[in-house]
Amino acid sequence: MITFQVQTTRKEEFIDITARVADAVVKENVKSGLCCVYIPHTTAAVTINENADPAVQKDILAGLQHLKLESLHYAHMEGNSPAHIKSSIIGCWAIVIVEKGRLQLGTWQGIYFCEFDGPRTRTGIVQCVGT
Amino acid sequence: MITFQVQTTRKEEFIDITARVADAVVKENVKSGLCCVYIPHTTAAVTINENADPAVQKDILAGLQHLKLESLHYAHMEGNSPAHIKSSIIGCWAIVIVEKGRLQLGTWQGIYFCEFDGPRTRTGIVQCVGT
Amino acid sequence: MITFQVQTTRKEEFIDITARVADAVVKENVKSGLCCVYIPHTTAAVTINENADPAVQKDILAGLQHLKLESLHYAHMEGNSPAHIKSSIIGCWAIVIVEKGRLQLGTWQGIYFCEFDGPRTRTGIVQCVGT
Repeated sequence: MITFQVQTTRKEEFIDITARVADAVVKENVKSGLCCVYIPHTTAAVTINENADPAVQKDILAGLQHLKLESLHYAHMEGNSPAHIKSSIIGCWAIVIVEKGRLQLGTWQGIYFCEFDGPRTRTGIVQCVGT
Repeated sequence: MITFQVQTTRKEEFIDITARVADAVVKENVKSGLCCVYIPHTTAAVTINENADPAVQKDILAGLQHLKLESLHYAHMEGNSPAHIKSSIIGCWAIVIVEKGRLQLGTWQGIYFCEFDGPRTRTGIVQCVGT
Repeated sequence: MITFQVQTTRKEEFIDITARVADAVVKENVKSGLCCVYIPHTTAAVTINENADPAVQKDILAGLQHLKLESLHYAHMEGNSPAHIKSSIIGCWAIVIVEKGRLQLGTWQGIYFCEFDGPRTRTGIVQCVGT
């Protein structure tokens, strides 16, 4: 199990963690199996999406804002319920297949830490299983 | 593989299954690996979110209701299409990392069975892989 | 690791890949563990939902269209940002438990490739871990 830190600088932000996950796969020394990226937070998430045009990451955040979750009256008093909801919609774990010791990401895929209630210092965890 | 039952009592509801999953990890006797929580239903799901303030669970249900999926005209005649859609948005499986024989949940994280078409008697399945 | 092709014929479409995943589990020869279905694309996804009434698959697509993601002005110039957002909402990986060499799907569950920007020739990857 490999733990890493992510420093976010905005309220909502995607941060590319592909290289950190790929490094963890090398350290875990699994050749064929599964790699799990886990985010131990309730107002953040992890997703896999386009790595070529950074506009896509902004568009995904804009698409989630378009749901207008901020306009609701919530029971939770900390004011960050939309961030909790987005965390459950996107999910706080991702799985990528590992083969020949490498992440089997598609050509246009990168792994992104999703901040929904920053800025904060966040943690990511990588665990590989297999042979 | 460990199977457990969940009795839901409302149309929509989150039920904390963290303790049941933690017990299953002990029984599966995996020290380092991954734990999968799987829900074999199409109008329910599983998510990981805040365990401190129960208001958050209600707010996530309210956030999904805010999408107004109930207002559509659907092709499926059973009347529970919004529950099927919510199941696919949240997802019917969750993964948590296991290390030193314990679920590596964050401090504020709990595992929740999500009922979207209750009340019903539901099933959850836990499978651990690793060493 | 088993790779397969999916030919989509519409802009948005669900294609049942349950039989292909079940075949891959037999070939991978895992009796007890986890099966990962991974989609190496950024405008497609994979979900598990009802296999009995095909209307449910259309209703899930209709529910996502109801979010009106197409009405936003996006930064990404290819015009397919709604497809990227739907990919992150549904997710490009799924996990199913394997026991006695078989996928532990619920009675009404099937595995669906989700096309959000077709028609295209797509790829799916299956990897099993366990014993």
